[in-house]
Amino acid sequence: MFDWIAFDADDTLWENEELYRKGRETFAKMMAKYGVDHSIEHRVDELETDNIRYYGYGVMSFVLSLIEMGIKETEGQLQTEDVQRLLDLSKEMLTAEVVLMPGVEKVIKQVRKLAPLMLITKGDLLHQERKVAESGLSGYFRAVEVVSDKSPEVYAAILAKYQIQPERFLMVGNSLRSDVIPVLTIGGWAVHLADHLTWSHEDGGLEGQNQDRFLEVASIQEVGRILEDLVADQHGR
Amino acid sequence: MFDWIAFDADDTLWENEELYRKGRETFAKMMAKYGVDHSIEHRVDELETDNIRYYGYGVMSFVLSLIEMGIKETEGQLQTEDVQRLLDLSKEMLTAEVVLMPGVEKVIKQVRKLAPLMLITKGDLLHQERKVAESGLSGYFRAVEVVSDKSPEVYAAILAKYQIQPERFLMVGNSLRSDVIPVLTIGGWAVHLADHLTWSHEDGGLEGQNQDRFLEVASIQEVGRILEDLVADQHGR
Repeated sequence: MFDWIAFDADDTLWENEELYRKGRETFAKMMAKYGVDHSIEHRVDELETDNIRYYGYGVMSFVLSLIEMGIKETEGQLQTEDVQRLLDLSKEMLTAEVVLMPGVEKVIKQVRKLAPLMLITKGDLLHQERKVAESGLSGYFRAVEVVSDKSPEVYAAILAKYQIQPERFLMVGNSLRSDVIPVLTIGGWAVHLADHLTWSHEDGGLEGQNQDRFLEVASIQEVGRILEDLVADQHGR
Repeated sequence: MFDWIAFDADDTLWENEELYRKGRETFAKMMAKYGVDHSIEHRVDELETDNIRYYGYGVMSFVLSLIEMGIKETEGQLQTEDVQRLLDLSKEMLTAEVVLMPGVEKVIKQVRKLAPLMLITKGDLLHQERKVAESGLSGYFRAVEVVSDKSPEVYAAILAKYQIQPERFLMVGNSLRSDVIPVLTIGGWAVHLADHLTWSHEDGGLEGQNQDRFLEVASIQEVGRILEDLVADQHGR
């Protein structure tokens, strides 16, 4: 039924947003020292999103945006020791231990029996490669694609490169914006992990999408069962 | 004779080091205001090289290192307006116009008659993709690989992915360390562009390398002729 099954990595196979949440908390506390109010989180999100066009996705982009935001919000009063603290934060985040979601390895072993597996992840190239290597999961994936964005065009290019028909491709991930909507748009299948902590930028509505090839589960632990059922159901027809 | 011919991008097809040189100059002038001496360039190089393990190659890595260096060298006296100046520098560098080396398009058109062309470049994923798109050259390349490093293992993985025998692969680039030595190490061919401004980190000796598959020219303009001669010579045997 599927020629390839692809997984997102950050917040699908391993924790990621939790690190950013902690980073934002560190930054909010730092700003509080200067009397900058709590609503800063929303403005950080805006600047980060605006800076994606320069820096792309990832830790370096995040920390460069925090430094810029810190200078702006404190009207230039930001102390160099706080700039240094943000530089340290970048290195801490880039070397943080990879924490797998519970049950991931079991699910991967189940799903690889259905089709060869691909990892499609966006962010800092070096950091993503390091996380794949450190996860202990790289042996299960026949291909790894690190991309700068997850648009329909990017998915279409990957499918062309591996000569995959969209209806024989399925993507699993926590982000409607990045893992689900663009894949449905090009005619593929998508499984959404609904319950995981996800950066607000990665939310998005399914309005207007054809949902015939859309599945939703609470967590990755259910992905093995739902895909086995789907494949069995198709074979039984 | 060749199944694929690959080109490096930065400082091979278009200017790059010149932008970094200007960035280092801006930084040295900034440091001079604080009484930090001129030998800082060497120390910037050291820190940048040390930070590659966190940040990889590219503009974001460079600017994060400059901010770190600025705080250290001024013993925490760095003004926020100078931190802001360095953040601005990152955006200027990331959006700088792509300036092709003289004669590049003519050479690319010549060489593509000999084999399909691949671009192999390292650095920020998004920035590299943008430069390829803006160069106007992307139509000439059948494949583009952005990598986090250019080690023999990385070249071997690319050759495996495209099922290329090393002796039927040739790489053209300005860096002995990144474009020449690792390719010779795995048994491929390499053409070194000797005269171009190259970051000192990218220098490296050829001692101990088998040089049977090594060619050197002054600039990219000579690459078309030397490869045509090489192919004609092999056919004539």
